[in-house]
Amino acid sequence: MSVLDVAIRARESSNLLQIVEASQRSAALQRIKQILSAQKNKILEANELDMKFAKKQVEAGNLSESLYKRLDIKGNNDEKFDTMLKGIDEVDALEDPVGKITLSRKLDEGLSLYKVTCPVGVLLVIFEARPEVVVNISCLAIKSGNAAILKGGKEASHTNRILASLISEAVDPQTSGYGLTIPLSPEFPINTIQLVETRESIHELLKLDRYIDMAIPRGSNDLVRYVQNNTRIPVLGHADGLCSIFLDESCDLDKAIHIVVDAKTDYPAACNSVETCLVHEKCLDRVFPKVAQNLLEHGVKLHLDKHSKHSLHNSDIDFHKYKDLIVDATAEDYKTEYNSLDLAVKVVSSINEAISHIGEYGSKHTDCIVTENKENAELFMKILDSAGVFWNASTRFADGFRYGFGAEVGVSTNKTHARGPVGLEGLTIYKYKLIGNGQGAGDYGLAAGKKSYLHQDF
Amino acid sequence: MSVLDVAIRARESSNLLQIVEASQRSAALQRIKQILSAQKNKILEANELDMKFAKKQVEAGNLSESLYKRLDIKGNNDEKFDTMLKGIDEVDALEDPVGKITLSRKLDEGLSLYKVTCPVGVLLVIFEARPEVVVNISCLAIKSGNAAILKGGKEASHTNRILASLISEAVDPQTSGYGLTIPLSPEFPINTIQLVETRESIHELLKLDRYIDMAIPRGSNDLVRYVQNNTRIPVLGHADGLCSIFLDESCDLDKAIHIVVDAKTDYPAACNSVETCLVHEKCLDRVFPKVAQNLLEHGVKLHLDKHSKHSLHNSDIDFHKYKDLIVDATAEDYKTEYNSLDLAVKVVSSINEAISHIGEYGSKHTDCIVTENKENAELFMKILDSAGVFWNASTRFADGFRYGFGAEVGVSTNKTHARGPVGLEGLTIYKYKLIGNGQGAGDYGLAAGKKSYLHQDF
Repeated sequence: MSVLDVAIRARESSNLLQIVEASQRSAALQRIKQILSAQKNKILEANELDMKFAKKQVEAGNLSESLYKRLDIKGNNDEKFDTMLKGIDEVDALEDPVGKITLSRKLDEGLSLYKVTCPVGVLLVIFEARPEVVVNISCLAIKSGNAAILKGGKEASHTNRILASLISEAVDPQTSGYGLTIPLSPEFPINTIQLVETRESIHELLKLDRYIDMAIPRGSNDLVRYVQNNTRIPVLGHADGLCSIFLDESCDLDKAIHIVVDAKTDYPAACNSVETCLVHEKCLDRVFPKVAQNLLEHGVKLHLDKHSKHSLHNSDIDFHKYKDLIVDATAEDYKTEYNSLDLAVKVVSSINEAISHIGEYGSKHTDCIVTENKENAELFMKILDSAGVFWNASTRFADGFRYGFGAEVGVSTNKTHARGPVGLEGLTIYKYKLIGNGQGAGDYGLAAGKKSYLHQDF
Repeated sequence: MSVLDVAIRARESSNLLQIVEASQRSAALQRIKQILSAQKNKILEANELDMKFAKKQVEAGNLSESLYKRLDIKGNNDEKFDTMLKGIDEVDALEDPVGKITLSRKLDEGLSLYKVTCPVGVLLVIFEARPEVVVNISCLAIKSGNAAILKGGKEASHTNRILASLISEAVDPQTSGYGLTIPLSPEFPINTIQLVETRESIHELLKLDRYIDMAIPRGSNDLVRYVQNNTRIPVLGHADGLCSIFLDESCDLDKAIHIVVDAKTDYPAACNSVETCLVHEKCLDRVFPKVAQNLLEHGVKLHLDKHSKHSLHNSDIDFHKYKDLIVDATAEDYKTEYNSLDLAVKVVSSINEAISHIGEYGSKHTDCIVTENKENAELFMKILDSAGVFWNASTRFADGFRYGFGAEVGVSTNKTHARGPVGLEGLTIYKYKLIGNGQGAGDYGLAAGKKSYLHQDF
C-alpha cells in the first residue's frame, strides 16, 4: 500500500472516529490490553530478536548502550511489560477529553454558540527506539478520538510490527479469540492505527498536510529539526531541552543542593534535566562549593567559569581527587544540551543577568529559580518565556505523568496550542457550534429595525 | 534600521511587556485613542493622499474598486474613523487575558502547579489595504501583552505610516502634548509596535523564527499561502473560505431562503460568505426554486448542476429574465471561492453525500445545515471537521465581533492553538508555574521510602 493510501485511510478513520462514543473508545483500549496480555510471549520473542541484533550493533560500535537498553520491552521480572499494560488502564481512566463544552453563549434569543472540544484529526508520530511508544501513543490517540500513523525506528522493527499488528486486530470489531472478551461496535474504524516501516515514507508523509493534522517527532534533536524543516504540518515537539537553574542570592543551601543534584543526576539523558547552573555572586562562596561537592560525588563533570572555579579553589574541595571532573567552561558549553553528567556553571551579578542569560541561551523548555525571595521568584516566573518556570523545585518535574496528566505524547516548546508536557488535552482542539432558527447576520446592526446581540454566557 | 534590529527590538519589548501591569496596558490604549483623536485631521490628510493616488490606479485598471473603498479611513460623516476609535474602547473594556490561572494542582504538600495564561510574544502581522488594521491589531497586541511588527500594503502607505508613528508616540512614556492626559509608566517598552515598509522585509522577517512567535497574514489567499510556504514561524490564518450550506430533506423553507440569501449577499467578499449550496433531492422541488428566485432577485449568479437546473425548469422561474444569472456548473465551480455574487449548487441524495462533499471540497472554515431534524443536525455538527459547524444560522456569523470576542485578529482554520475567529484568547498561550520547597523528582516513586504524588486540583 502506498503512503498516500495510508494517509487517506487515516483521514477516513478520523472522520468516523468523530462519532464513536467514549464507551467504544474505552472498549478498544481494553481489547488492546487483552490482546497484548494474551500474546505476551509472541511479543517478547519479537523483542528478543530486535535485542539480539541490536547487541551485535552495540558490539560493532554502531549503537549506543543507552539506545540498546531502551529497546527492551520486558525489563526485570517483566516489569516494563507490565508497566506498559498498566499504562493502558491509566489512559482509559482519564476523563473523556472530547465533546467538552468550554464556552456557551447566547448570541440572541434562539441563537446559541458553543465551543466544543474535538479531536485534532490525524496524527503522524515518528519515534526512535522505545517500542512501547507504539502502545502509549495508540492508546492516547484512541482515547482522544484521533487516528494515528506511526513510524518507528528500524532497531525495534520486529517489536513495533507485532505490537502494531496486534493493536490493529484489537480495534477490528470482527476480531475474536486472542483472549478478547469485550465486543466492539461494528462502526469502529479498523484503520485507526497504522504503522509504516520504510524510512522513505517519512519524507512522503510530511508532504501530506492535506490529510495529516499534526506531526509528533519523538527522538533526537536531529529528527525533530528534520521534521520541522520539511513539512507544512504543524509540529508538536521540541528540538532542544536546555534547562537552567538559577541559585539566587537568598537561596536555601539544602534546597539548592537537592534540586541541582536531582535535576542533573536523576536521569541525565532526559530533556528536562538541567544543563546550566547560574549562581548569584552574592551567594557564591556560601552555596556553590557545597553544591559542587555533592555533584562531584555523583560523578558530574563541572564546566566552570573563572569565578565559580575561583570559589572552589577557596573551598575545601579536593581538586586532585576530582581533577577529571573540573574543567574550564568555553562559550560553547552554555549552548550545549549535554544529555550526560555534565553541567555548565556561570556566576552572574544579578537576577536580571540570569534572566538575560536564560533568554539568550535557553530553549524555553523549563527553567528554575532557587530563592527564598518571593519577589524575585515572581519576577523570574513572570518574565521568562519558557513552557515551565519553577520556583524551588527540580526541572525534572516537567513531565506529563508528574503533572498528573496520566500520560504524555511529548513535551512541547511550541507557542501554539499545546505547550509543556502534552497529554490528552493537547490532542484535542475545538470547534464552534452555532444553533439558530434561521437568522442571518444582516438581521443585526445599529440601523433602525436591526437586532442587537445579547452575548450572554450561560 | 535593519529588519533584524526591528525583530530584536520587538523581542526585547515582548520580554518587558511580560511584567507590565494591565492598568498600564490600558493606559497605553487610552493614550492611543487620545492621540489619534487629537491628530484626526493629519491622519485624514494622509489618507486623502493614499486615496488620490489609488483613484488613479483604479482608473488605470491596476486596482479594484473594492480595494479602493477599503483604503478609506474616513467614511460618511467620519463614521469609519469614529468606529475605529470606538474599537479602542471596546478592546480596552475586555477582560485582561493575561495571568489567568486555568489549572491549579497540588502535586504534593508544598508542591503546587499552576497553568497560567501569558502573551504569545512577538506577532508579525502582514496585511493589505484597510489601514485601520494598524490600530486594531496594535490595540489587540497591547491588550494581550504582545509586541507586534506590522507590514501594510503600499496603497495605504501614508495612512499606515502616520497611524503607526502616532501609536509609537502614544506608547512612549516620554511623549506629552497631543492631547495626552494619561501618564504611562516609564517601564512601558516604546518599541511595542513597529511598522516596516519595504516589500523585501517580509522575506527577511519570515526567516526570524528565533525572534517572532506568530505570523498573521491578513489579505488575499496568495498572501496567506506565500507566508505559510516560506516560514517556520507558526502561521495563524486561513488561505480559503469555501463555506457550504446544506439544505436537508426536512429544512424549513423560510429559514432556507433567509439563511442562503444572507450568507451569499450580506457581504460576498468576506471569507464567511457561502460559496456552495447542497440540496437534498427529497426537498429539491419544494425548496430550491423559491431559494433560487430570492437569490436571482438579489443578482446572484447560480452555477447549477443538472438536477437543480431541471428543478428550476419545472418551476415558474422566468429563465428569459434571468438568462445571464443561470449557468451550468463545472467541476471547478465546487472548488471555487468566488468572493462575489456567485453560488455553486449541487443536489445530493443523502446527508452523508453532503458531508462527504464538504469534507472533500470545503476549507474547514464554516459550514451550515438547514434542517428541522435534530439527529441530522447533530451528526453534521459532530462529524464535520470545520472550525464552525452551524445549524439553522448563516455562515456570516463566523466572526469575532458576532461571537462576542470584542474584536478579532483574523479567522483561523488551523488545527493548533487558535481556531475560528481569533480574539484576545488566541493571542495568549500558557506556561506552567511550579512552586515547591526544594523537591527533586527522584524523591517520588514506587520504591520503599519514596513519596507519592497527590495530584489534587484546588
